Amino acid sequence: MLLLLFVLPSAIYSQDFYDNTQREKWLKIAKDNTPALVETIKKPVGAVKIIADANAFQGYKAISSQSVSEVYKKSFKQQSGTVLDFGQHLTGHVTITINTLNSVQDAPLRFKLTFGEVPAEVAVPFDPYTGGLSRAWLQDEIITVMELPATITIPRRLAFRYVKIDVLGSSPYFDFTINDLTCVGTTSAVNTPDALASSTSALMAQIDAVGLTTLKECMQTVFEDGPKRDRRLWIGDLYLQAQANTYSYKQHDLTKRCLYLLAGLAQKDGFLYCNVFESPQPHAQIGSPFLFDYALLYNVLLKDYLEATGDKQTAIDLWPVAKRQMDNITTYLNSNNIFDAEKAAKNGWWLFVDWNDKLDRQAALQGIMIFSMKQTLALAKRLNKEKEVSQLPGLIDKMSSAALNTLYSKDQKLFVSGPTKQVSYASQSWLIIACVVKKKEAQTILKSLQASKNAIKPGGPYLYHYYVQALIDSGLKEDAKKIVAEYWGGMVNKGADTFWEVYDPSNEQLSPYNFYPVNSYCHAWSCTPIYFIRKYPEIFQANSK
Amino acid sequence: MLLLLFVLPSAIYSQDFYDNTQREKWLKIAKDNTPALVETIKKPVGAVKIIADANAFQGYKAISSQSVSEVYKKSFKQQSGTVLDFGQHLTGHVTITINTLNSVQDAPLRFKLTFGEVPAEVAVPFDPYTGGLSRAWLQDEIITVMELPATITIPRRLAFRYVKIDVLGSSPYFDFTINDLTCVGTTSAVNTPDALASSTSALMAQIDAVGLTTLKECMQTVFEDGPKRDRRLWIGDLYLQAQANTYSYKQHDLTKRCLYLLAGLAQKDGFLYCNVFESPQPHAQIGSPFLFDYALLYNVLLKDYLEATGDKQTAIDLWPVAKRQMDNITTYLNSNNIFDAEKAAKNGWWLFVDWNDKLDRQAALQGIMIFSMKQTLALAKRLNKEKEVSQLPGLIDKMSSAALNTLYSKDQKLFVSGPTKQVSYASQSWLIIACVVKKKEAQTILKSLQASKNAIKPGGPYLYHYYVQALIDSGLKEDAKKIVAEYWGGMVNKGADTFWEVYDPSNEQLSPYNFYPVNSYCHAWSCTPIYFIRKYPEIFQANSK
Repeated sequence: MLLLLFVLPSAIYSQDFYDNTQREKWLKIAKDNTPALVETIKKPVGAVKIIADANAFQGYKAISSQSVSEVYKKSFKQQSGTVLDFGQHLTGHVTITINTLNSVQDAPLRFKLTFGEVPAEVAVPFDPYTGGLSRAWLQDEIITVMELPATITIPRRLAFRYVKIDVLGSSPYFDFTINDLTCVGTTSAVNTPDALASSTSALMAQIDAVGLTTLKECMQTVFEDGPKRDRRLWIGDLYLQAQANTYSYKQHDLTKRCLYLLAGLAQKDGFLYCNVFESPQPHAQIGSPFLFDYALLYNVLLKDYLEATGDKQTAIDLWPVAKRQMDNITTYLNSNNIFDAEKAAKNGWWLFVDWNDKLDRQAALQGIMIFSMKQTLALAKRLNKEKEVSQLPGLIDKMSSAALNTLYSKDQKLFVSGPTKQVSYASQSWLIIACVVKKKEAQTILKSLQASKNAIKPGGPYLYHYYVQALIDSGLKEDAKKIVAEYWGGMVNKGADTFWEVYDPSNEQLSPYNFYPVNSYCHAWSCTPIYFIRKYPEIFQANSK
Repeated sequence: MLLLLFVLPSAIYSQDFYDNTQREKWLKIAKDNTPALVETIKKPVGAVKIIADANAFQGYKAISSQSVSEVYKKSFKQQSGTVLDFGQHLTGHVTITINTLNSVQDAPLRFKLTFGEVPAEVAVPFDPYTGGLSRAWLQDEIITVMELPATITIPRRLAFRYVKIDVLGSSPYFDFTINDLTCVGTTSAVNTPDALASSTSALMAQIDAVGLTTLKECMQTVFEDGPKRDRRLWIGDLYLQAQANTYSYKQHDLTKRCLYLLAGLAQKDGFLYCNVFESPQPHAQIGSPFLFDYALLYNVLLKDYLEATGDKQTAIDLWPVAKRQMDNITTYLNSNNIFDAEKAAKNGWWLFVDWNDKLDRQAALQGIMIFSMKQTLALAKRLNKEKEVSQLPGLIDKMSSAALNTLYSKDQKLFVSGPTKQVSYASQSWLIIACVVKKKEAQTILKSLQASKNAIKPGGPYLYHYYVQALIDSGLKEDAKKIVAEYWGGMVNKGADTFWEVYDPSNEQLSPYNFYPVNSYCHAWSCTPIYFIRKYPEIFQANSK
């Protein structure tokens, strides 16, 4: 009976894969690498009218209507619904100033301020809200102004270019003006990226500029996925941001901070959480499903970081995390050495790859696993840790052969995935990036893919990135350039100030959240043309075809 | 030509009736008498359901549903629309605390908090808003909560008993609780009024208690008209509050502060503004129409203050203001010495008397003018200033005779007003308060009034007060008691915690502003039963019929 009194809570029995001292050290290094935020005071550059236009992105466009000073000097009571345009995407805190006009305030005022990254956000009603994510992500704030003059700062940080101001309550007995609107914009991007070659086409230069702004706006005290929504660190976004950063702002300390944050906040079993939060204290989304492909990309990220910086200390420090991620490779491998995606999903793993409900993820995951193993092995070699991952060469061989034997259709000259033998851009791209086939075969596959009518296309920029990478890796340089020009250039031509989280040229209102205004329109994973344009200048900065 | 260069702005030519030194001195005294606000921390006492009930006030009543601790411990996502009841009327600042529940926050939350003085305010939709006053007076505040745990204080001061909390945005991926709601209630009423005689009936004791709360809630750094809406100093409300204060809290310094504020902020021509604001610095509602009856009551207020305090210094100091108000008596007097209400209104004067569009105000104003002159004359006598208002005795006589000759219908035994010879409670009450007729005649008139089917009844508590005063002045004590018991007792029986700005037993949704939820339900001018009950204990505290 006495024994019962000494029974310890189960938490103590289930050991932490990393010990607490290690986690604390990692989190300390993450904290020490927190960048300073640079603040810039921004003012609107004009008032615009948002008008319906079937040819404009999402059916709305902003056209210049009057100067800001004209708006400011007139009674605002007659100007409810005015949209002010800051002329660029901003991330920061907004302050509004309101004054009485030739009269005495006798009652409070009520305003709705709606902040939009794109014109449609300040044009379409948010209610009734049909989205699957919290309605509170939408950036409309209602304020009561009890006393004038008033200078009010909206408590939440906002991400926007346009601000619509609706008067929801005013008194017939006095008049007022809105005198000032100010945004204190923040970013941790301070370095100036290199200039592009003068031979760069105007379109590529524009794409590059929009990509730089996108990345800059997402660079806060971590690489955020989107400054409007989710505003946090996701491994998948980080992987692409770090690549883009290496070829632009070169602020590797921010990458380092993110690598350490993710490590310090890993699951108890040593596998990584797909996303973490910084505030009120660093914490992971405990309880969220394990996102396999993101965990695998952490290793590539670490290897890329080492290559970009030579910072071996960090790589060695975080090696146990990379090594641990490899322990999941065999968890759902079937007897043919093919990833059993169905079983993994059934058991609660999240297989992302792309926002696309129709996508069969088996083949893509097979590719991501092989790619990650190869990169991890290369990392191990650099660190003299090869022996610690001695299982990898054999696994790489077996899984690569299995991919060719089981997932490749010789008739179609395409990889197929899952029980329906689905053909997709995801499968081809990832198995090519993983170098399961040689360059020549990869070209054949990608050409077959382009000719395939039923292939599942990328659902958004995240997978488009890997498709472009696969094209480049296969030597299909002109095709790569064409996709960047058409897809990201398409956003630029539709007026993008920053690249969007979701973009389907054939359905501008596509939303994985069932309500397109809640999409993020400045999204990290879409910034990667700056990586392509700057890493492969011979392809993208050459002003030839 | 040179002369033109020296033309001075017109402001310098139009002299201030009071010089600047005098105004500054008055405002300094007002400032020096600013009371400290006493803060009390209040918590809700229970959760209630607001249910439709045709027999309840305005069709809604609150019934107890569960304890506050039950609300606090459960997920609030499933409790949207919960109403917490603080068990009493409060005026102050509200803080809400929100926490995550067994999960990690992945998105912001959006809440609407609706504060109601009465149940209907948290039951009926505010939009579409049809009211004539600013929609912003309605106490619904929308907040976005970016990060948990959160403790958020609503910026505006609120006046309420009930708080409805609606969840407007939440994430399917985490849960949360509302853990605490706190109101820091404020008032400047610190004294404890005398206990009532033990013989006082339960109803009168209840009426007195509700009246005391009403006055206490309106006692802030001035005597506010209503802590929810308009939240400022109006002469008419102040006149009644000062009377009630004299017989309850006896905080005469607050009356003194208000008298000086009104004086210091008077119109340039020396006549008074009907209302003033304290913040951001003391100022009048410049541009608002001159409210004649309120200006006249300032003098009665000053005389009452002197009587209650013996503070001759203040009375002498402010005598020039009282004296100046008398200069308007003859402005719109016709050749028969009757007030030409139509002409005054046409020229922009505001004649209030009561919220009632149908009311002809001529006879009532004649009464208020005579009453004010008599009280001013009495004040002058106390201050040895009789010579300065030597016109008053003659005017009082002439206007009293005129009232009897022109406004009195011998057939009806009633005063009549205006071209339609309208009979109203306002006319009889004010001409009786002015002692235009002797007690015996006044009784006859009031009995005729009660018998008159077409007499215009009081539109609200402000005029009911004067009707009760007229009944008492005429010796119709039981009638006075009956009105207090029926009218104010009616509010008590309908669940009033504080007395309402507007109350028509036959139309509970009456609103001078075309939207009854914007009415104030804790309104200074309705608190006066405490004055009657405590000034005339032989009538109201005697437990006889």
